[in-house]
Amino acid sequence: MDNCCRMRCLTRDSDSEDQRHLIEEERRFVKDYESLDYDQCFNEPYRRQHKREIQTHGKWLGSKKELLSWVVIFFIGVFTALVAFFIDYFVKRLSMLKLETVNSFLHDCHDVKCGAVSLFVLLAFNVLFVSIAAAFVVFGEPLAAGSGIPEIKCYLNGVKVGHVVRFKTLVSKAVGVLFSVSGGLLVGKEGPMIHSGGVIGAGIPQFQSMTLKKLKFDIPYFRSDKDKRDFVSAGAAAGVAAAFGAPIGGVLFSLEEGSSFWNQSLTWKTLFCTMASSFTLNFLLSGVEHGEWGSFDQSGLLTFGDFQCSTDDNDCHLWTIGDLFIFIIMGFVGGLLGAIFNCINTKLTLFRLRSLSRKGKTAKMLEVVLIGTVTALCAYFGPMFVGTCKTADFANQTNPSLDEVQQFECPNGTYNDMATLMFNTQETAIKQLFHNSEAFSYQALALFFVLFFFLSCWTYGASVPSGLFVPCILCGASYGRFCASLLNGVFHMNTFLGTYSLIGAAAFLGGVVRMTISLTVILIECTNEISYALPIMVTLMVAKWSGDIFNHGIYDIHVFLKGVPLLEWDPPHGATILEASDIMQTRLKYVYPHTRLRSLVNLLRTTAHNAFPVVTLRQPEQTAAPGLPSTPSRNRSESDGLLAANLKYQKSSQVSRMSIDRRRAFTLTTATTELPRVNVTSKFVEADQMSAIQDSLSPLIFHGIILRSTLTALLKRGVGYDENATIPNQPVVESKTLQEDYPRFPDIHDIDATEVNLQHVMDVTPYMNKSPYVVYPTTQLSQVFNLFRTMGLRHLPVINSGGEIVGVITRHDLTHDYIEEIVEAKKNTPSMLSSITTSSGA
Amino acid sequence: MDNCCRMRCLTRDSDSEDQRHLIEEERRFVKDYESLDYDQCFNEPYRRQHKREIQTHGKWLGSKKELLSWVVIFFIGVFTALVAFFIDYFVKRLSMLKLETVNSFLHDCHDVKCGAVSLFVLLAFNVLFVSIAAAFVVFGEPLAAGSGIPEIKCYLNGVKVGHVVRFKTLVSKAVGVLFSVSGGLLVGKEGPMIHSGGVIGAGIPQFQSMTLKKLKFDIPYFRSDKDKRDFVSAGAAAGVAAAFGAPIGGVLFSLEEGSSFWNQSLTWKTLFCTMASSFTLNFLLSGVEHGEWGSFDQSGLLTFGDFQCSTDDNDCHLWTIGDLFIFIIMGFVGGLLGAIFNCINTKLTLFRLRSLSRKGKTAKMLEVVLIGTVTALCAYFGPMFVGTCKTADFANQTNPSLDEVQQFECPNGTYNDMATLMFNTQETAIKQLFHNSEAFSYQALALFFVLFFFLSCWTYGASVPSGLFVPCILCGASYGRFCASLLNGVFHMNTFLGTYSLIGAAAFLGGVVRMTISLTVILIECTNEISYALPIMVTLMVAKWSGDIFNHGIYDIHVFLKGVPLLEWDPPHGATILEASDIMQTRLKYVYPHTRLRSLVNLLRTTAHNAFPVVTLRQPEQTAAPGLPSTPSRNRSESDGLLAANLKYQKSSQVSRMSIDRRRAFTLTTATTELPRVNVTSKFVEADQMSAIQDSLSPLIFHGIILRSTLTALLKRGVGYDENATIPNQPVVESKTLQEDYPRFPDIHDIDATEVNLQHVMDVTPYMNKSPYVVYPTTQLSQVFNLFRTMGLRHLPVINSGGEIVGVITRHDLTHDYIEEIVEAKKNTPSMLSSITTSSGA
Repeated sequence: MDNCCRMRCLTRDSDSEDQRHLIEEERRFVKDYESLDYDQCFNEPYRRQHKREIQTHGKWLGSKKELLSWVVIFFIGVFTALVAFFIDYFVKRLSMLKLETVNSFLHDCHDVKCGAVSLFVLLAFNVLFVSIAAAFVVFGEPLAAGSGIPEIKCYLNGVKVGHVVRFKTLVSKAVGVLFSVSGGLLVGKEGPMIHSGGVIGAGIPQFQSMTLKKLKFDIPYFRSDKDKRDFVSAGAAAGVAAAFGAPIGGVLFSLEEGSSFWNQSLTWKTLFCTMASSFTLNFLLSGVEHGEWGSFDQSGLLTFGDFQCSTDDNDCHLWTIGDLFIFIIMGFVGGLLGAIFNCINTKLTLFRLRSLSRKGKTAKMLEVVLIGTVTALCAYFGPMFVGTCKTADFANQTNPSLDEVQQFECPNGTYNDMATLMFNTQETAIKQLFHNSEAFSYQALALFFVLFFFLSCWTYGASVPSGLFVPCILCGASYGRFCASLLNGVFHMNTFLGTYSLIGAAAFLGGVVRMTISLTVILIECTNEISYALPIMVTLMVAKWSGDIFNHGIYDIHVFLKGVPLLEWDPPHGATILEASDIMQTRLKYVYPHTRLRSLVNLLRTTAHNAFPVVTLRQPEQTAAPGLPSTPSRNRSESDGLLAANLKYQKSSQVSRMSIDRRRAFTLTTATTELPRVNVTSKFVEADQMSAIQDSLSPLIFHGIILRSTLTALLKRGVGYDENATIPNQPVVESKTLQEDYPRFPDIHDIDATEVNLQHVMDVTPYMNKSPYVVYPTTQLSQVFNLFRTMGLRHLPVINSGGEIVGVITRHDLTHDYIEEIVEAKKNTPSMLSSITTSSGA
Repeated sequence: MDNCCRMRCLTRDSDSEDQRHLIEEERRFVKDYESLDYDQCFNEPYRRQHKREIQTHGKWLGSKKELLSWVVIFFIGVFTALVAFFIDYFVKRLSMLKLETVNSFLHDCHDVKCGAVSLFVLLAFNVLFVSIAAAFVVFGEPLAAGSGIPEIKCYLNGVKVGHVVRFKTLVSKAVGVLFSVSGGLLVGKEGPMIHSGGVIGAGIPQFQSMTLKKLKFDIPYFRSDKDKRDFVSAGAAAGVAAAFGAPIGGVLFSLEEGSSFWNQSLTWKTLFCTMASSFTLNFLLSGVEHGEWGSFDQSGLLTFGDFQCSTDDNDCHLWTIGDLFIFIIMGFVGGLLGAIFNCINTKLTLFRLRSLSRKGKTAKMLEVVLIGTVTALCAYFGPMFVGTCKTADFANQTNPSLDEVQQFECPNGTYNDMATLMFNTQETAIKQLFHNSEAFSYQALALFFVLFFFLSCWTYGASVPSGLFVPCILCGASYGRFCASLLNGVFHMNTFLGTYSLIGAAAFLGGVVRMTISLTVILIECTNEISYALPIMVTLMVAKWSGDIFNHGIYDIHVFLKGVPLLEWDPPHGATILEASDIMQTRLKYVYPHTRLRSLVNLLRTTAHNAFPVVTLRQPEQTAAPGLPSTPSRNRSESDGLLAANLKYQKSSQVSRMSIDRRRAFTLTTATTELPRVNVTSKFVEADQMSAIQDSLSPLIFHGIILRSTLTALLKRGVGYDENATIPNQPVVESKTLQEDYPRFPDIHDIDATEVNLQHVMDVTPYMNKSPYVVYPTTQLSQVFNLFRTMGLRHLPVINSGGEIVGVITRHDLTHDYIEEIVEAKKNTPSMLSSITTSSGA
């Protein structure tokens, strides 16, 4: 449990430096992450265009965009369902081909030789399939590995994760999951479906594709990060709806994972999307698979079947109040099992990051093939050595679960209980555990649980698309059924086996993924039985609580190991004593309203910031006339053009790279300076910037913030004016032009500096966001956190009461990691802390 | 349709002044509304206390409050269920008593005389019951009238509605609805249950009661508007859960109506609360009513029963894809019917506001008695003249719906179809419409629909607690069943009657209330049949769209007629061209950091503002030394103490009272001044404040905002210091002391000025909120709107880039009404508009 504890310490408490370093080491391999531009930039071209549109179209434009968005939403739902159907159809065909071939070898086999042949055939199928799956991931799009839920979670949280919503990713994911499931790996297709839905949601509204260059229509309405993220959340919801037949659960999933604020219209659209997806899939499944077009009885890829007491048993209750107490215990144990699962998987993932990723693509492929082989061996030898042959009345048509049992090596008229679970598609195994009223033996259930627990733990994180829901449900269902068998067998209780299997599944699943309300609703919708709401919820809640004692949910762990600066729901407890000035970054790079192009190019080439505050100096002698806004003289501000960094400021994109130790040292040293932190001056000026120190003593009046992408777009077009000309002649760039490179804006290094007159001066004021949200240095951390998270900000300037900028807060300054570091640093220096608080709070 | 059109114009378009005036007239009778203090005030005592708590208890305090909140949440759920059970139990007993008595008179009656007697008995019962209900409302708590959903909606939206969460209101509501339902009025108990849940949610966490003074425990954790509103939303959700057996629908209801942002922990708690409520009610109902303790088959007060095809009909489908198109048409018509319903009810409500409310309590009582009498007459004569006697095979036990038919005057072995619907409890009538496979005659359904339509429209808004859901479901179900009968009878289709009744109910209900996602989920949970999700959703969506063409939902109309400044989800379309400076109020009253108590008392007595900016003057000669925060000299700021209003500013609590015309005039005149609106000076200085005009030319540096309640609490305790003393000796007041008067802070007029040394000076800086959220004058309206709504603000200061305050935005400035006025004014003066934009955007 070492690594897990370490994990825990790192994310929860804060001890043991060396362990921390170790984890930090692993995280170094991952790259930096930036925020999405969810917050719209209301600069002048935008406002102008907007005003023009309102004047021209009036209400119609709103309706046009609105109407188009409904159409788009509908098609997102439909296409998600089509992908789900595609996966499901081929998984069924391929699995059937495999099982039937192997069974045909097994059927009349009684010696070792033909047994070996059948094993070889099984192995051949599985290794072939998983190799194809792995090849799509390893040589196609590595991001398509895993369930995709962590990636979607990050994207919806507002983090720009490269390649996550590309068409190529969708193909790798869909084809990969098809073969990984068919190849007998213990993976589900539900997580990948959610990711696929997200990609479809991102793709369709763009009406263009980077992968397929030819696909490009001139419908630019939704080409912004804001709209894209909204559609991705709808698409992910559609994915949930298709995977589980849970339209409401899908909406709640995307709300729980993604929405910063409850936007009624978006929610309504998302529900429409999930309904469209659910409807289309239902229509196709019941038509193609069951030949009953229009009957709508197949709600999703994964259904649990009907939980019903048999009509001739009047004593039968699905559950009673007494069961509820047992469910609580089961939930507690499920949480513990989930925590162990997560712990082992964390270790494995760290190992993969440390060793496997360095050994290249072949190693990854080999690991997958190894997993596939071991899984196939288990599936073959498990039934052979542990399974027992059960007699069943196959003529009795009222027990539909008998249709799907596996005979394996058993004589005719009997079936092998272990093979029914292991040598079958996973959906069938789940239904067997839930509904087969014939008992499975204790040892079959126990072995099944142990094998599936470790195999699925090993598989999750390998280089194949791999959902976690189905393996977890299988493990949990066998655990629940084991409990029920024990209660019925040993304590002679009359429990309903199906309910206990379901509760076991909920307990284990809850213990692993730790999702809350959306998981409850998804499970309820899967069972199609609302009376299970209470027991499922109680179980999930207890499982989450007991699991949370030890570590985080598996998705959060993977997000953490990727080093993604995810924003949690609330700031960490105890951090409420912090203020904006404690966490803001004060080494600022900024631009003047009128800046020479040469300086701009230099600035952009030497920094990696994604936005720059636009400031003017307040001169001691130059005071605004009463009653007039203080507009600084143009010559003054032009003279320098670009003021080198005279404020202590940390390059935002480097924050995650920098070791936490350095950050702490930085913070502590800062705290020991005699000047209060809210002050705009600092002793920390780097050597090559000493020339600017004189200027730095003047306060910097904040006027707005300008994005790097805007600056490069303007530079690319050579926007600027000749300062010697009599009238200002800076060309005007429209909003549409600025946005035309979305989503991949030009890099500054791609701009040919020879084509631009570097002596010209650019007036950036029309293109800056004049009125971003701002906070004061004394603003409580919780307020800062709420504002940043809810509004989906990327940069939050901190200004003092004189309107001067004193710092900037980005996503990296609000992660739990960083905040806890600051709290720790504050605790260790209580006297400095109080002095800072006093001086900054003056 | 006149008034309705007027209604529509007022809220949507903007025409016809006289009509507008008429409506404004009505709205004048209603009082002013203030916002809740959802945004916490982080002043120094709060921070100090918080820091102390963290140091003393560490993590434990968080857990303690957290743990307590879970316990509280649980009990909110349980008590809500108890209230629901109480209402349901007595409604059933009283209704049964009434029906059995009348039936005993009717049973062997064949002449006019005994018919008259039975009618008289029925009338006597009904009039008695509805009089009791009306008395509880009229003489008890008038706010208990109606469904309570508009009130809860307003409260959750952040508006302080007096008496809405009082214990007295709960009693009036619960007892009132009990008798109004028993009295045969066409009202449901579901809306009132939601309100009751809200009151319980507000009450329990306070651990004290205003009504029952003796009830007071020292558990002050949750005594703030923020916590209270969160608990109210949980309570309202519990109410929904109890009313409809819809725990998830309840959560979504409180999210849809109340939540500004999706707070995961609150959502999870709310779900726990709804589960507790649903579980308790289920336990009690199945135990007490059905004698099956622990079987959990009664999920809520209103259930729809199981929709199932009979087992011997293989051709039967609940619905097919063909039906879906008919559902869309039905949804459209349902929306139209709903719009007509709302229109008539608007007229009625206006009439009630205009005439009835002036005639006093007796008139209100008489109206209720009249409604009761007419309803009773309809229920009696409807079956007699339109009902037909149907023969039924009562011996056949497989048709449980035959247990609840009404024989009325019909011979034994038959039942009266009209009486089964009208002379029965409403829940029974709903189940009959949904599940009775025997046909009701066309004329019975048609008459039933027409009578219920008009009667329930008349009843809603009278002085009795009256839910709308059940009457609407009844109307809609008869409409749906009528459609189905027509399709089956005339077009010889094979439709499932129950599904059509359900869809009719959804269509009409959706057309009346226009709720979206929560209503969908509530209906799905009521039917316990997830396959109905798609048709219900499509129907509700179409119904909402078609209804929205004509007017708003009934709850919104009532909220509007109450004059409550409700904040919608988004700013009105077209208003995106506005900026903060266009809507802010610029006539500010403010205080200096050090203010003489006399001035403070005067200020508080002569204004009604709920918060005051704390400002200092920026003197032309006094410039902050570089590198130091600009702390104004104390003597300077003391000299005046209180600066009279020198900025144009509208008393915020008067805004809603002021006629829109005056506001427009104000806006237009302002627009004609030559100074830009963002400027801090103005020509609009009232005569008695001319002395202050000199000072007003200096910019006002914003330092924080202080609440009226804090100022009065400080004044009450005589907080201040003697300016001649050598050391500052102002007593320190702790956060707990400031909060101890919650929720009713002392009025300034209740403070005895003789007990306070008015010559003393108060240093308000420790008690002000130093760092509220602020916006710039150029901030886009949509950003302002999002910030205000999402963060639940009450006052939003507008500061310019020099850190000077130029205006304040409150809830009244963000209502659609007001914003549309401003847009209109801007449209009419395009030239001024552009000049303003230019100057302010410089």
